[in-house]
Order: sequence, then C-alpha cells, then structure tokens
Amino acid sequence: MTDASNTAGDLTLAIDAMGGDAGAQPVVEGVAFAVSKGLKAKFLIFGDAGELEPLLAQSAARKYVDIRHTDKIVAMTDKPSHVIRRGRDTSMWAAMSAVRDGEAQAVVSGGNTGALMALARLQLRMIEGVDRPAITALWPTMRGRTVVLDVGANVEADANQLVQCAIMGEAFYRALMHVERPSVGLLNVGAEDLKGHELIRAAARVLREADPDMEFKGFVEGNDISKGTVDVVVTDGFSGNVALKSAEGAARLVGSWVKEALTGTINAKFGALFMAPGLRKLKDRIDPSSNNGGFFLGVNGVVVKSHGGADARGVASAVNMAASLARRPFRDEVAATVKSVMQRQEKFTKPDAIAPAAKAAAL
Amino acid sequence: MTDASNTAGDLTLAIDAMGGDAGAQPVVEGVAFAVSKGLKAKFLIFGDAGELEPLLAQSAARKYVDIRHTDKIVAMTDKPSHVIRRGRDTSMWAAMSAVRDGEAQAVVSGGNTGALMALARLQLRMIEGVDRPAITALWPTMRGRTVVLDVGANVEADANQLVQCAIMGEAFYRALMHVERPSVGLLNVGAEDLKGHELIRAAARVLREADPDMEFKGFVEGNDISKGTVDVVVTDGFSGNVALKSAEGAARLVGSWVKEALTGTINAKFGALFMAPGLRKLKDRIDPSSNNGGFFLGVNGVVVKSHGGADARGVASAVNMAASLARRPFRDEVAATVKSVMQRQEKFTKPDAIAPAAKAAAL
Repeated sequence: MTDASNTAGDLTLAIDAMGGDAGAQPVVEGVAFAVSKGLKAKFLIFGDAGELEPLLAQSAARKYVDIRHTDKIVAMTDKPSHVIRRGRDTSMWAAMSAVRDGEAQAVVSGGNTGALMALARLQLRMIEGVDRPAITALWPTMRGRTVVLDVGANVEADANQLVQCAIMGEAFYRALMHVERPSVGLLNVGAEDLKGHELIRAAARVLREADPDMEFKGFVEGNDISKGTVDVVVTDGFSGNVALKSAEGAARLVGSWVKEALTGTINAKFGALFMAPGLRKLKDRIDPSSNNGGFFLGVNGVVVKSHGGADARGVASAVNMAASLARRPFRDEVAATVKSVMQRQEKFTKPDAIAPAAKAAAL
Repeated sequence: MTDASNTAGDLTLAIDAMGGDAGAQPVVEGVAFAVSKGLKAKFLIFGDAGELEPLLAQSAARKYVDIRHTDKIVAMTDKPSHVIRRGRDTSMWAAMSAVRDGEAQAVVSGGNTGALMALARLQLRMIEGVDRPAITALWPTMRGRTVVLDVGANVEADANQLVQCAIMGEAFYRALMHVERPSVGLLNVGAEDLKGHELIRAAARVLREADPDMEFKGFVEGNDISKGTVDVVVTDGFSGNVALKSAEGAARLVGSWVKEALTGTINAKFGALFMAPGLRKLKDRIDPSSNNGGFFLGVNGVVVKSHGGADARGVASAVNMAASLARRPFRDEVAATVKSVMQRQEKFTKPDAIAPAAKAAAL
C-alpha cells in the first residue's frame, strides 16, 4: 500500500504511542517495521520521551521520527466527555492537534475508541453534509478483502445515514484498494427485496435510484462478508459489530479445532511437518494483524484506530493504511456525492423511513 | 438425545417430506438414520405416496412409518399469507394439523420458514403471555453448544420481547441439553452496562431483577457465541441472523483455507495421511448437520424447522431435536415464568424502553 514515488518529505503521520494495551513498544516497533518495508514518511510520535528514546535508539527508523513528549494518557475507561473537558495534555489530544494544525496528514492511535472519535469530531469536524461518522473494518474473504462499516460508531442508523455510510465506504475502498468501482451491499437478513426493516429497504431504494455511479448490488447476508460477494458491506454500528465479532469468534473456533487436529497425536505432528509451507500460509491468513486498522469515516481528516492489542505487524498495517489514505484524499468526493444524493433522495423515501422504522416481520 | 426407556408407542412425529430442496429422499433417509441410531418413535410422513413408498420399501424404519399422501406442496417462494388462505391441502399444513389434532406430538419440516411459522401460529396458537415467537439456532463452541435466538422470526424486539426470548431460550436449553441452570447473556456491542441500545439495557435490568431463578450473565459480544461464554445468547431476529450467518461464513472461509493447506502440495497430501483421525474429527465438527434444527419457541407445540438443504444426518438431528423436546414439554413452565416476570418488570423499565429506543451512541 506504500507508494515508492513519494519521499519521506511528502507525508507526516502523527502517532499516539500511549494508547495500546502494551504501551509504546509495539507502536515503535510497528513504525520501524513499516519503514523497513518501504513506507516513506516522517513520524511525530507522541508519548513519554523517557520510554520512547531507548526504544528508538537502535532503530533505523530513528531519523524519520520526531518525539513529542507527554506523559499524560487517555485511559481505556475514560469517558469521551471527560477527555474532551480535561484531556488537553494527553498524547491522543496532541496527536490529533497535529493533524488539525496541518503538521501531520494523518493520526494513528491504539487508544480508547470513544475518546478518539470524540476528539476527531471536536478537532477535525465532520465532512460537510455527513450526519454521523462510521468506523470501518477490513475482513479477509474468499476473493480478497471486504470492508464492513459501521462497526461501532453508532448503534443505530436511519436510511439517510446508511446511504451516507455506503457513499463513504465506497470512496474509502476505492482509495485504499485502488478498485475503480467497488461493489456495495446492504447487510440484511435475506437477499429478497421485501426482507428486513423498512429503513434498510428505503436506503436500498435511494442507493439504486439516486446514486447512479455506484455499483450497488442490493442486499447481502452475513455469510456474504467472508464470501467476498461485495467489496463494501454497509450496516449500522450494532449489526456491524455483531457481524465482525461473530465472524472473528467463529474463525478462532475453527482455528483451535485445526490446531487440535494437527497436534493431537504424535502421528499428526509428524504429518504436519510435510505441510509446513501451507500451514505457515494458513497461520498468516488467520492472523488478524494484516487487517488491523479501523478508519474513522466522516470526519474531516485521516484518523486510524489501531487495535489496542495489536503487535508490531498490526501497528504497521494501521500505519500503512493511514499513509495510503492520507495520500489519496477523498473527502471532497464524499462531500459532493453526499450532497447530490441527499438532494435526490426525497422522492425515494417515505417520511417514516427516515426515522428508525416500526416493527416489521422478517418472514 | 433419545431416551431408551420410551417405546415407539409413546411418541409420534409428523414429518413434512415435501419441504426440502432435494425432495423426499434425504427426509426419508434421515428418519431411517435416526431410527437406526435408536430413536423410538412412530412417524407420520406427509408427501407424495408414489415417491415415498419406493424410498421406504427397503427401509428397516418402514414399520414405524405411516405414509399420508398429498401431492400439494408449499413452495419456497409462497408468501405466508397465501399459504394460510390456500395451503390447506399441502403436506406442511397436514403435518401441522396432525400436531394440532393430537395425532402427533411434534412436527418437522424443511420447507418455507415463513409459511411454517404462520401455520404454527394459526393452528397451534401462541403460549399464553408470549407476545411473539422466536427461532433458535444451535452453534458449536469451545466448550459445548450454545443456543442463539431469535435468528429470524422478528427483525426487531422491544425490551419485553427480549426478556420473553431469554425465558424461552433458557427453558429450551434446559429441556434439550439437560442442564439445570443454563447461563443466559444478551447480545450487545460491549460487555459494559452502558453499551448498546436503551432497550437492551432495560431488558438486562428486568432479567437481573425480576427473574431471580435465571443464571443471567449480562451482556455478551459476538465472539462470545463461539467461545461458549454462556449457554443461551438472546437477541432480536436481525442481529441473531447476522451473527449466525457471519459466523457460518467465517467458519467456511477458514475451512477452505485449511483444505488448501492440506491438499496444496503432494507433500501436504502425504502429511495429511498421518493425521487422518484428527482430520475426520475436524470435518465432523465443521459439518453443520449435527446442529441442524431451528426450534419455533413461543408457539403452543413442538415445531422444528430443518434446513432446506439438510442431508440425511441433518434431518436426523432435527428429528431427534423434535423427539427430545416433545418428551420434555416446557410450555407450562414458560407460561408461568413469563407471567411472573412480566408482572414484576414494570418497575425496572422506563416507558420509553418498551418501544424500540431512540438512537443512542455506542461509544
């Protein structure tokens, strides 16, 4: 995802080193790993200088890094409202400010998601015309990678918000994966037009009629995520979170069964020696670090949430995502598309579809 | 799950042979398989006698089967309302009538889910005090099996309906799995008390305060389903369907990767020979047929939906589930618990929590 034609001078990334569960070490190692794999960028790393200096001392990445000292930290248990009122000296706040002030073009943090979102909205503001933010997740599939959104910014979404999610997700996928016309689906409990809530059906009508440029495929179901039926799966933050965590849990369950089958007996262990390359590939595929990085869509800047427990490779994935999106800004495109679709949407939605719908039978 | 102390005379199951995707053959084979594994029951099999007779002619199960001829069928595309008006001569209708009339104690069908539910409600009615039905799904976990409900009867549920779902799911799990106090969790986007919709928080308050006999564990997340954190996972039909299908899709994805690792090279194929027993077990575990059978909770009778594409083993699982639940009726227990909890619930819910809640931030 890095672009060799860019030099370090073109791009600066703000890194919050204090957010993750294991402190600064995997963050610094992740930056070093990304640099060693060819990422050309400068880094402002926000955190405790006394901790960061020794971690960076021996690193080949040292010369690209500017350490910004702060020993204040946003705790995982801090409420977003508390951070907004009292978090001014924290590493997260300072990293976000670097983007707001134009010192950096993107921010990466493994910290408290709610606080990071609140600071992003406060300091960067929303893209014009977008009602609410959404968080993306990348998921490996039978044919590549699918982005699922929203996976946790808002537990509910009305029809307009689903439509905006679809527009943002499509632009995100194009920018990140270099696919000209990503396909988009709305998550539902069946592929037929009559399934699900009225608000999802209303969103489908708007996407079909009011956004002629989108490769909109209609409804998809939970199993379509791993199949890779579409590039972008759109849903509200509740269903997205449930889908993603249920899929992660199932992948881990099958992974544990596989491990048992491969190591359960002496014979099995011996047999496994013959399939070492295949098993290494399998392990890499199940490894979540290559898909680490939740993008905050809708805010006026590039904000990537790294998993709090990410290792160096995971942090490197999030850093590469931030670099890739910072170089291919799509906020103007999103603002323009949202504006034109929202102007045209009214004739495709009934008024009661805009608010969360009344109960509807799934049958 | 069969009870050797019962003789065939105790139990009669009504089987709709016309519903599945592959016609009567897997249904008849499934009944025969269940009988060969020790199930003691009689069977009324509803379908085309000209098709059923030759399938059963050579079967050891023949003597337990009474063929009830009908050549009318409910199509997968039939609307439930159409089936209710015009479906009187179909195999599904006739099978349900056998339960209503006391000829059989349970019905199994692989047909149109919506039509089956509509016929169940029409002919068997709801359990007193239960507002709406729910469909269960069994899911294998790290420590056994978890039941997830609702997985598709209703796309939305208010707080009272979630509470009723929990009461029904707990009774179902106890009856099927012989666990005295199954643990119950509400599916949410985080385990903390403040996460999710207000209606889920209201349901949690009611379960915690108004049903002292339940082993209620609070909120669980999508990944807890495969972990087996609780025995019963309760959610609305939209999220339940999304969770289950997302998990199925992920399990299938990892399964395809495993297959590739095991067969990708000559060496790998050779190595796989040494782990044959472990791989057979792995295959059995990934095989969905041992978990086939969705139970219709809330209706006043035992109705099991078999997967339309189930093979003989899958049909046998659904038939065994029907037999097991028919022998351990829990409808009176459900009615009594729902009544007592609903009487006590009012002080734990705010009026606005009973209807689907207004938007709430997930953060």
